[in-house]
Amino acid sequence: MDAPLDTLIIDRLVRDALLEDLGDAGDITSLAVIPKIATATVVMRARQAGICAGLGFAQSAFALRDPLAEIQCCISDGDPMAAGDDVMIIKGSARALLSGERVALNFMGHLCGVATQTAELVAAVSGTSARICDTRKTLPGLRAAEKYAVRAGGGVNHRFGLYDAILIKDNHIAVAGSISEALDRARRYVGHMAAIEIEVDTLEQLNEALEAGAKVILLDNMSPQTLREAVERTAGRAQLEASGRVSLETVRAIAETGVDYISVGRITHSAPTLDLGLDIDLA
Amino acid sequence: MDAPLDTLIIDRLVRDALLEDLGDAGDITSLAVIPKIATATVVMRARQAGICAGLGFAQSAFALRDPLAEIQCCISDGDPMAAGDDVMIIKGSARALLSGERVALNFMGHLCGVATQTAELVAAVSGTSARICDTRKTLPGLRAAEKYAVRAGGGVNHRFGLYDAILIKDNHIAVAGSISEALDRARRYVGHMAAIEIEVDTLEQLNEALEAGAKVILLDNMSPQTLREAVERTAGRAQLEASGRVSLETVRAIAETGVDYISVGRITHSAPTLDLGLDIDLA
Amino acid sequence: MDAPLDTLIIDRLVRDALLEDLGDAGDITSLAVIPKIATATVVMRARQAGICAGLGFAQSAFALRDPLAEIQCCISDGDPMAAGDDVMIIKGSARALLSGERVALNFMGHLCGVATQTAELVAAVSGTSARICDTRKTLPGLRAAEKYAVRAGGGVNHRFGLYDAILIKDNHIAVAGSISEALDRARRYVGHMAAIEIEVDTLEQLNEALEAGAKVILLDNMSPQTLREAVERTAGRAQLEASGRVSLETVRAIAETGVDYISVGRITHSAPTLDLGLDIDLA
Amino acid sequence: MDAPLDTLIIDRLVRDALLEDLGDAGDITSLAVIPKIATATVVMRARQAGICAGLGFAQSAFALRDPLAEIQCCISDGDPMAAGDDVMIIKGSARALLSGERVALNFMGHLCGVATQTAELVAAVSGTSARICDTRKTLPGLRAAEKYAVRAGGGVNHRFGLYDAILIKDNHIAVAGSISEALDRARRYVGHMAAIEIEVDTLEQLNEALEAGAKVILLDNMSPQTLREAVERTAGRAQLEASGRVSLETVRAIAETGVDYISVGRITHSAPTLDLGLDIDLA
Amino acid sequence: MDAPLDTLIIDRLVRDALLEDLGDAGDITSLAVIPKIATATVVMRARQAGICAGLGFAQSAFALRDPLAEIQCCISDGDPMAAGDDVMIIKGSARALLSGERVALNFMGHLCGVATQTAELVAAVSGTSARICDTRKTLPGLRAAEKYAVRAGGGVNHRFGLYDAILIKDNHIAVAGSISEALDRARRYVGHMAAIEIEVDTLEQLNEALEAGAKVILLDNMSPQTLREAVERTAGRAQLEASGRVSLETVRAIAETGVDYISVGRITHSAPTLDLGLDIDLA
Amino acid sequence: MDAPLDTLIIDRLVRDALLEDLGDAGDITSLAVIPKIATATVVMRARQAGICAGLGFAQSAFALRDPLAEIQCCISDGDPMAAGDDVMIIKGSARALLSGERVALNFMGHLCGVATQTAELVAAVSGTSARICDTRKTLPGLRAAEKYAVRAGGGVNHRFGLYDAILIKDNHIAVAGSISEALDRARRYVGHMAAIEIEVDTLEQLNEALEAGAKVILLDNMSPQTLREAVERTAGRAQLEASGRVSLETVRAIAETGVDYISVGRITHSAPTLDLGLDIDLA
Repeated sequence: MDAPLDTLIIDRLVRDALLEDLGDAGDITSLAVIPKIATATVVMRARQAGICAGLGFAQSAFALRDPLAEIQCCISDGDPMAAGDDVMIIKGSARALLSGERVALNFMGHLCGVATQTAELVAAVSGTSARICDTRKTLPGLRAAEKYAVRAGGGVNHRFGLYDAILIKDNHIAVAGSISEALDRARRYVGHMAAIEIEVDTLEQLNEALEAGAKVILLDNMSPQTLREAVERTAGRAQLEASGRVSLETVRAIAETGVDYISVGRITHSAPTLDLGLDIDLA
Repeated sequence: MDAPLDTLIIDRLVRDALLEDLGDAGDITSLAVIPKIATATVVMRARQAGICAGLGFAQSAFALRDPLAEIQCCISDGDPMAAGDDVMIIKGSARALLSGERVALNFMGHLCGVATQTAELVAAVSGTSARICDTRKTLPGLRAAEKYAVRAGGGVNHRFGLYDAILIKDNHIAVAGSISEALDRARRYVGHMAAIEIEVDTLEQLNEALEAGAKVILLDNMSPQTLREAVERTAGRAQLEASGRVSLETVRAIAETGVDYISVGRITHSAPTLDLGLDIDLA
Repeated sequence: MDAPLDTLIIDRLVRDALLEDLGDAGDITSLAVIPKIATATVVMRARQAGICAGLGFAQSAFALRDPLAEIQCCISDGDPMAAGDDVMIIKGSARALLSGERVALNFMGHLCGVATQTAELVAAVSGTSARICDTRKTLPGLRAAEKYAVRAGGGVNHRFGLYDAILIKDNHIAVAGSISEALDRARRYVGHMAAIEIEVDTLEQLNEALEAGAKVILLDNMSPQTLREAVERTAGRAQLEASGRVSLETVRAIAETGVDYISVGRITHSAPTLDLGLDIDLA
Repeated sequence: MDAPLDTLIIDRLVRDALLEDLGDAGDITSLAVIPKIATATVVMRARQAGICAGLGFAQSAFALRDPLAEIQCCISDGDPMAAGDDVMIIKGSARALLSGERVALNFMGHLCGVATQTAELVAAVSGTSARICDTRKTLPGLRAAEKYAVRAGGGVNHRFGLYDAILIKDNHIAVAGSISEALDRARRYVGHMAAIEIEVDTLEQLNEALEAGAKVILLDNMSPQTLREAVERTAGRAQLEASGRVSLETVRAIAETGVDYISVGRITHSAPTLDLGLDIDLA
Repeated sequence: MDAPLDTLIIDRLVRDALLEDLGDAGDITSLAVIPKIATATVVMRARQAGICAGLGFAQSAFALRDPLAEIQCCISDGDPMAAGDDVMIIKGSARALLSGERVALNFMGHLCGVATQTAELVAAVSGTSARICDTRKTLPGLRAAEKYAVRAGGGVNHRFGLYDAILIKDNHIAVAGSISEALDRARRYVGHMAAIEIEVDTLEQLNEALEAGAKVILLDNMSPQTLREAVERTAGRAQLEASGRVSLETVRAIAETGVDYISVGRITHSAPTLDLGLDIDLA
Repeated sequence: MDAPLDTLIIDRLVRDALLEDLGDAGDITSLAVIPKIATATVVMRARQAGICAGLGFAQSAFALRDPLAEIQCCISDGDPMAAGDDVMIIKGSARALLSGERVALNFMGHLCGVATQTAELVAAVSGTSARICDTRKTLPGLRAAEKYAVRAGGGVNHRFGLYDAILIKDNHIAVAGSISEALDRARRYVGHMAAIEIEVDTLEQLNEALEAGAKVILLDNMSPQTLREAVERTAGRAQLEASGRVSLETVRAIAETGVDYISVGRITHSAPTLDLGLDIDLA
């Protein structure tokens, strides 16, 4: 994958995770048992099939532990892995690699898990025009990493936070009084560089939104039939995003309605870890 | 639950999560659409049954957004929730509460998920002497929070990091040359205030560890029969922890072997979020 | 002005600025000369006409110095001030207020300067459909504050950073090979929630961009005649932003060409401070 | 210029500025459009005459983006630049250099602006014994950088903050009761390593200060005639600083009165950016 | 004592110290054993005579643990304490106070130790014109706190760091070539607001320094006789500081030579803790 | 010594200490007087006999100042030094080394002091089975460093903070109602990986603790006779730690009672600095 997460962001996350694991005393097991001069060759392997994501995090973890470690990636983020595949080979200080192992695996396991969940949904809608996207339902502190993993899995990112795009929901509409008033307020506040999306729950609301000139519309919790009707009414005047009750079983039917985007919280907040392990050859 | 996470730690995590979501521009949707003086009453409700954990995080999120908000918890961490149960009621600035909503829910959803997964395993071993414990397989940056949620779910914490206890694994033993040499090195390094656990893969290794005076032994990836044999051989001379291939299906059989602890990575790294929502009544 | 900057962001900036000014020894002049119990009433006054911006920063500075200080704002951000107008009245510990004075004034002076420069341009284009917007040419560390001041002055914000919208410039087009290829790559990378703008230098490039479906186009360094021609060719198919050589003298002519946005670096990177002062009545 | 700002300070400022610009998503334009392996040669050029300041900031920005970039400075801080002069040449990753460009230019533009404003005043007083110095009227967070730029422009620094020297102003004198009492309190508080300056508004106050043994005296808002009289009365017993209403038009007359220092807020808080640009040759 | 350390600085130090002690798990003893609702009254008492310093740190520690705690100081910083004297009374949550106890005492013990060591030296030179001052030989991270304690003990502060005054030592003179050249370079670099001190080891160097117009001179490692001779030669033309081999036994002889300042590293880097304890009355 | 403190922790402490000393202006003496290109060879020497500790801190300080400096350690942490012994030789930029000198020495002086104090006590109990350990009575912010120095001096670490082990003191017992109830609560809260120690003041309490199954017992402030009696009663059922009134004079008598650990606050909170100096040869 050719578009990695920025290294400044990766290094900050990895450094914090290492400090979380090392505390004030450090890796007291390795300090007690492993001689300072011992070296090791470590192979990270997938123990389960899935999509690779997070190599930069593992590299950063090992490099921060041993700046002289030799690190070789066997595959790229975004690539599929079979159980048993080599992922990364690291040679360096035994103490250093052992003390970075868990942080490297914790990142890789979670990010591969997110990428794999995403890729399954992307595969399920293959051939339709729908793209799978994430939400702000991410684990605190890990949003940048998780959104990167979504891209590695073939998905596309929704907004990153409250700050980079407007999403007008039912409560906002209620306070503003109407869909058109809410859209007007939003357009006065932001300019041409912030997208404005509005959530609608019914086809009546969809009509209002289209009349008010909405360009991006979130269709919340609609059945495939209603979604199909929404696509027809919209007739290309706006981009349509479907959300709610999306699973591997339902996603294709939703995609086939013709919506442009399907957003899924589960790929970030409920992705089970992908099983990876380190085989260590101590010298 | 009477033993919450320290507020300094909670506030630091929540503040960072709010800043992650607010960025430099803040909640531009609410700033654009919601008048500054609007107030709201918000009810957080469980949409799924499970165990409550993380109320302090939600409180902190709303209090950091509106220091004058009135916050009332309807239940306590560790309590079971049914779908539809009220969890928390908050009155305050509409803008503030809307901008804190997602962070509050992201913490609560994940921590209730961890507590619920833990509680299911705890219930499954009920009546045995085995206790369910966590691992270091946690999501980066969230270890303190997740370990708290494990306690809320009735589990007990394994070590918090590399720094607070010694866990001698196969690689350490290989470098040291033998189980007894590895234990000796560990004992020379730490004193009376750091526990020392040693991992064994076979009953032969168990014998070696017991002869070397090990007081805490990790039995890795053993079948229930082998575990039972290990318990008999140990005869109370050491505390025994079982790990590997633990699931809701297998956990009771493992517990019934008589081991003292069963450690499970899945309760932290793969807990699906628990579904909670906010019903907002804007004034 | 009803849409202030988020208090978490303000407090972080003000706290850092106070620590920059206080160092390790604190305000040694006041510690040496002013008794601890002395109180003061301070009136912040404009010494020059302009637009108010940054009251929240001054409030934060005084409140962080003396949490019990009574602070009263006489006007609102976005309001015009005449020389001599009262801006804010603060009563509290003399030592505290004296030690916060410079930080409060440094923020207010700069932000009022930015707002005032913006407002002059906004006034100059009054009656046209053009809106004045800022750029990423901001002073390091102060972008959130300066972009807020632009809004206070009646302007609208361009993107906040590299992260929240795509802006394809000449170098990007050169590498991609063509305008349409660059736009395609951008659309594959981001979804529906990130705006994509493309910079063109000639009317030929404008044609290419329009054919490729560009929705936001930056017209760089074009004369009013060329801009007018660009507006005509575009015929509402895209939003148009003009940039380059914008001054108080030229801005109206540019606005009258019919462009939608005029971006100006000068309002943030070269805004002279607005003169404000504190009159202190020590008790 | 042989006395640069400390690299620890530069790197901290530049890193923060890069993170401000990159956010959580990074430079999404370059990630989308520029291939990872593309390289570039970038030439930073002055587009306006002025004094160079801030090369270390630009170097740091590019080095933090691409640690392997080759960076060559064509001139030194403190040197004059003509429009069109090459300032710095950088070869490295195209993505990295594009993502660091704006931060490098934002620092350089501002610091060259400060140095240039300073140098104009320094030139204007050439041949007199007066030195141009700065104030605490700096932009929040940028004081260390701006004070460095003042030195690059030939000026000298006033105190860096409230912590490193005492400056007794009218309010302090009022509370203390008299100039001599205020000076006494200050001398009791600090020892031999912190300078003590006292502000006077009239010649009568000057007499009092001299009698009380003041060694550094700030003459605030006095006309050249009064300043000349103050210099005569002082007769070398104290160092004299003039402040207030200093501009390029008035500064020489002030300098010719014989004062030792002339402090000017404008060189830091109101310096317009110096125009520099990057010419990028993508490979 | 009427001139405390700035609360922003105190709170930052205390918060960091609390986090150091609490780690990720918090005070697990109190969480396990003390009910959440238990309250306590705590009396901090001196168990040894000495000078009080650091009350603000203890207050901050208890207030950060329990914002509702009632805190009453029985004496002031700078006051003498006898063994058994009450220092502070705190009422609040038992858990909170127990978890803040050690941090409060660690600060108080060290700072009272510094103040007490200082006060002994100050008393020993009583009646002379010499003032006791500190050095940069402080414990890393604690300089601001220790320098405050020196003031509480009746001492005066030398420079706070490398940044706030110039101290030219033998190595600097060697590189510059001569005392006068070193002083010239220093004067060109800094202006009127940074003190310049020069270290001399012999009376010949003293002569050179005086001829070069030095105003502050450090007499390093001279015998009382030589110091007396130095005072005579100087004849009031410069302030003189003696350093080296200063102890409670030698300090009066040094002071009686007529030097203005005597600097002592021992009062900060080697002050034994003062014994204080908490008597806790749990309710 | 083969088990150093983690470099991430060292670098963080050293960086903060350098920033404390450099402030915003940096080392203005060296900037003013020492040419940028000057190089130096620096030899750190012990001026007093003692145990070496903290080489990693000095290395980090010089490396952070001059990444190209050549640094050579002449001995190892834990080794004895005689007065005059070379400790470390550094070649690099004169400015850089001079500006890092004080921070390097402040760490080394304190940590060698702690190690030396520890080693004296360790030597005094030589031949007994007692080990010398530290406490939580450390200087704020320096706990990790001081605990490392204790290990370098031959001691062993007690718990690092409130978070990594349980220590039940008199107040906890009072609230819980009895020793056995307090122990029960502790055991329910933590699992097998956190040690539980209980403090007893009398032999009666010791009996209670032993009956309740305590495995680690702190004997507070007991006379050698009572300690001996305690050892006999315990008969190997628990590890025993003695604390209170421990000095170089009393420690052997305490050790000879047969206790396993003797904890001493003085080795961290009251260790006088060890005198080290830098001899600088400027080129």
